[in-house]
Amino acid sequence: MGTMGKMIVNCLPLTDAEKQKFRDAIAGTNTKQEFVGISAQRGMMGWKASVPDELRATATAVIGNIPPTDCVQYPQLDWLQTWSAGVDPYLKPGVLNDHVQVTNATGAYGQSVAEHLFAMMWSLMKNIPMYARQQSEARWHDLGTALTPVGATVLIIGTGDIGSHFATLCKAVGAHTIGVRRKATQPANGIDDMHGFDELDSLLPTADVVAMAVPASPDTTHLIDGRRLMLMKSTAVLLNAGRGSAIDPIALARALSEDQLHGAGLDVTEPEPLPADSPLWHEPHCLITPHVAGGNHLASTEQRIIAIALDNVRRYAHDEPLANRRR
Amino acid sequence: MGTMGKMIVNCLPLTDAEKQKFRDAIAGTNTKQEFVGISAQRGMMGWKASVPDELRATATAVIGNIPPTDCVQYPQLDWLQTWSAGVDPYLKPGVLNDHVQVTNATGAYGQSVAEHLFAMMWSLMKNIPMYARQQSEARWHDLGTALTPVGATVLIIGTGDIGSHFATLCKAVGAHTIGVRRKATQPANGIDDMHGFDELDSLLPTADVVAMAVPASPDTTHLIDGRRLMLMKSTAVLLNAGRGSAIDPIALARALSEDQLHGAGLDVTEPEPLPADSPLWHEPHCLITPHVAGGNHLASTEQRIIAIALDNVRRYAHDEPLANRRR
Repeated sequence: MGTMGKMIVNCLPLTDAEKQKFRDAIAGTNTKQEFVGISAQRGMMGWKASVPDELRATATAVIGNIPPTDCVQYPQLDWLQTWSAGVDPYLKPGVLNDHVQVTNATGAYGQSVAEHLFAMMWSLMKNIPMYARQQSEARWHDLGTALTPVGATVLIIGTGDIGSHFATLCKAVGAHTIGVRRKATQPANGIDDMHGFDELDSLLPTADVVAMAVPASPDTTHLIDGRRLMLMKSTAVLLNAGRGSAIDPIALARALSEDQLHGAGLDVTEPEPLPADSPLWHEPHCLITPHVAGGNHLASTEQRIIAIALDNVRRYAHDEPLANRRR
Repeated sequence: MGTMGKMIVNCLPLTDAEKQKFRDAIAGTNTKQEFVGISAQRGMMGWKASVPDELRATATAVIGNIPPTDCVQYPQLDWLQTWSAGVDPYLKPGVLNDHVQVTNATGAYGQSVAEHLFAMMWSLMKNIPMYARQQSEARWHDLGTALTPVGATVLIIGTGDIGSHFATLCKAVGAHTIGVRRKATQPANGIDDMHGFDELDSLLPTADVVAMAVPASPDTTHLIDGRRLMLMKSTAVLLNAGRGSAIDPIALARALSEDQLHGAGLDVTEPEPLPADSPLWHEPHCLITPHVAGGNHLASTEQRIIAIALDNVRRYAHDEPLANRRR
């Protein structure tokens, strides 16, 4: 930290009332704060952090996802708070000095992503994507039986913020929930029974719904492959809002075309965007949404991001340990 | 009842185990029972009741929706149990003798219809019908903000079996529920606050979701008309799984085209099928399903119909009052 004291550049798109809360959070400390956010970005997808040149030299902290390549222009920086959950670009060598703390917005996106998974599940169970498509042809045609989560077994792969929230929703409407996580001894809200990844093959045949919310990691690549798709019930619904590469897209397209599953709901794909020639686009029982489960699609997500940042601004000004540290 | 004792013709598509339960229900009484159902109809939409000619003369009871015009061929009939909720065709003059009791399957369809309403609500909140349609063009495009039922006010018009079940689902995921029914003093499961129809105009502006599950009746015709659509929030979701005529379709199409609503989910329309030239087919924010919320789309509905009939067969054989009487 420089001899000038702490100086936070706050890029959040704040209301006047929210700005006052951030001022209150640093009151009585040697911390200054500049608000450079554009409140009109509120409710827009993809906030942009734009910091005037003159503030870059003196900023000791930035709230916002500044371009990683700009980080070198902040010589005094000792803290970066992102509004994203992912911080990978900032952790690459040469982007930030080693002593810079990086905190993220983990916890802000769980509701939004979990609700999107839940909406995809209900949609597929009631054949709504197919009804929406036949509507384009003004077609009034009964597509047959529907499914229900009541009494269903929902298998959740990855039981962090998102998986746990999704499990809680499923339990609330009458499903039984099974979780799969690395540390099987660690419980999670909403999960009735927790298991390790080594038990996945024996759990898949029992599941009416398989929901994936695993973070990026090398050992989840094609976690659901052709062999594991064959282990699933032909009435099962497969959902993915974690990382696209966790499902083998070729094997999934084949499984859907051969009616090995009731349906699949994908908010993430391999690769993204899904190429125009992917057969998944045209599988009637596949629902594809373009990585929109999270982001700032819900107003409550924005409120949570701001609450996380506010708490950390207070901690920073008062020399307390920061929350949500990723480095 | 004839001098021959009671004779039930059971048209349900039963398994062997279920037939045994129906035999047990009449054991030790003077009631006979013939099983004429076709078990292969199980899981099919629209069960057909087919009674051999020789049984029609002696049947004192029929379980199943025989053609109303055939009723005259059952001179001994004193009880008809339908597998539908609606019994209007059997109550018309000249169809059945006045002394014939008519019981229906009310209660069997609540879960199925309520879940379909719930799935339509989530779909519209997360823009899923529009994503399903742009998928046909292999289009990867973010359609913007989503909605959530958390903290939302859900107004349920008609709080019988379906409305009450739907309200319970909405409460389970964090919504506040307001009911509108004829007898405002009569509570219903899942409804936080109950009001009368006379308060509808003051409630509509407060609702984030308006769900209609009113039965057929002259005073619900165009209950939601152009004037009341204007009272609703521009972010509101309107759902209908009661009767199609409860919403003015011309006014709804106009409201949707002018973005007066976030969206509408219709499982029933005026008329049905919805005519090919209806503008509602092509409103992006309208989701139309072809009257599939109920019927036998869920296996649990079939199980409930059979449970209702089984209970009444036992009552009939033991000269107890029948349940679910409509006449």
